[in-house]
Amino acid sequence: MLKALRARLPHEDLVYLGDTARLPYGTKSAETVTAYATQATRYLMRHDIKMAVIACNTAASVALEPLAAALAPLPVVGVVGPGAEAGVKASKSGRIGVLATEATVRGGAYVRAIHALDPAAVVTQAPCGLFVTLAEEGWVKGDVAEAAARRYLAPLFKGRNAPDTLVLGCTHFPVLARVIGKVAGKNVKLVDSAATTARFVERELAAKGMAAKRRGKGKTRFMATDSPERFARVGGIFFGEEIRAKDVELVDIRPD
Amino acid sequence: MLKALRARLPHEDLVYLGDTARLPYGTKSAETVTAYATQATRYLMRHDIKMAVIACNTAASVALEPLAAALAPLPVVGVVGPGAEAGVKASKSGRIGVLATEATVRGGAYVRAIHALDPAAVVTQAPCGLFVTLAEEGWVKGDVAEAAARRYLAPLFKGRNAPDTLVLGCTHFPVLARVIGKVAGKNVKLVDSAATTARFVERELAAKGMAAKRRGKGKTRFMATDSPERFARVGGIFFGEEIRAKDVELVDIRPD
Repeated sequence: MLKALRARLPHEDLVYLGDTARLPYGTKSAETVTAYATQATRYLMRHDIKMAVIACNTAASVALEPLAAALAPLPVVGVVGPGAEAGVKASKSGRIGVLATEATVRGGAYVRAIHALDPAAVVTQAPCGLFVTLAEEGWVKGDVAEAAARRYLAPLFKGRNAPDTLVLGCTHFPVLARVIGKVAGKNVKLVDSAATTARFVERELAAKGMAAKRRGKGKTRFMATDSPERFARVGGIFFGEEIRAKDVELVDIRPD
Repeated sequence: MLKALRARLPHEDLVYLGDTARLPYGTKSAETVTAYATQATRYLMRHDIKMAVIACNTAASVALEPLAAALAPLPVVGVVGPGAEAGVKASKSGRIGVLATEATVRGGAYVRAIHALDPAAVVTQAPCGLFVTLAEEGWVKGDVAEAAARRYLAPLFKGRNAPDTLVLGCTHFPVLARVIGKVAGKNVKLVDSAATTARFVERELAAKGMAAKRRGKGKTRFMATDSPERFARVGGIFFGEEIRAKDVELVDIRPD
């Protein structure tokens, strides 16, 4: 997500906060995720942000409405709508699979967002909790990842509702795209919300007259609620470039 | 652990708290784990406990001393000493492997505890983060668990320090004992800290004159900081008996 935002909005300054003291969100209840995400976004508001992008699919799935209400008039953008849009655009058969965390699947936000765009779509979901840990371990290929992908995908491809498109509905899953694609087969398209969200953010900023006026390369500031070292190590897997622990600020986001 | 405590101390009442709003601890820093474990234990003190057993290996590894200091004179028992004792007793070669979380391995408490009992022991450690998620998914056998075990154990058994005993140094790992044993081979003993900790607790209670006077079956009370439903589902895997969500109290352990 950060990579897509930086590519599409090179002039904007970004503040990236990882709530590493309480991750993962995907195994927690909607109430707890909403409380954590609200704290995190309120903390970001102290840094004079003009828009919040909820890049965690779980938080965007279960907490977007309460977050937007609590933080108004700050524009709050989630990744579920853009992810659903990418899925609907990519699918020819209208059969779309969603791979996500336990909490995202339970909340059903992807199913609703896809049906809002294509009421006839047939949506199947699979909670893929182990993918989160596999991504964090950096085990993005090899026999463990493949066996896990086979186990998670098998139920989706049984029977007549086999999807032609899989939405990677968790920020962690794109790094496993190769192994998921190998198991799903080459006729199945994989999409995620990064590119569509970045485009959506660009349009929203322009529509609100909020786009950066100045030229030049925007800065990215990294903050984490625990262990900058681990954030740098694991974050590097996702961002596709090295992050140095000394460039990650350790922050306490609990309200005063 | 709970099972072992109930078996050895049938007359005692137990209060079991799972900090499900912030788990897992094993990927977090020593500072954060210490803060969380202190909050959790302080919360338990409101329930008039006479002793605290830190059944999470990560918390016991990195937070036992600060916890004992903060909560004195409450007796605080960890699982690392008893786990190390079980490993040293079981090993004939003096080569002991420790499978644990990232935070436990980094903290080195098992290495120190084993050396305190047997200074000549050769201790090797493997951080096995995926085992935690596999246990929570209930994937305790099958190809994914086996492939993960092969990958984690391979480095331990390379070369001359191959252990004859593996200490399962995380509360989650005993449910994976069968698959770990299959990969390690039948000449390798697997031990965990449950039985030795229960025996240690029994001795300590007796020594302090604190053992329950009355006869009859002690009660167990379950509390969780998030989602009683998930606690009941996942907890059932570990306890080996059904837990009903309605018997789990949702509690807020943050200090007033």
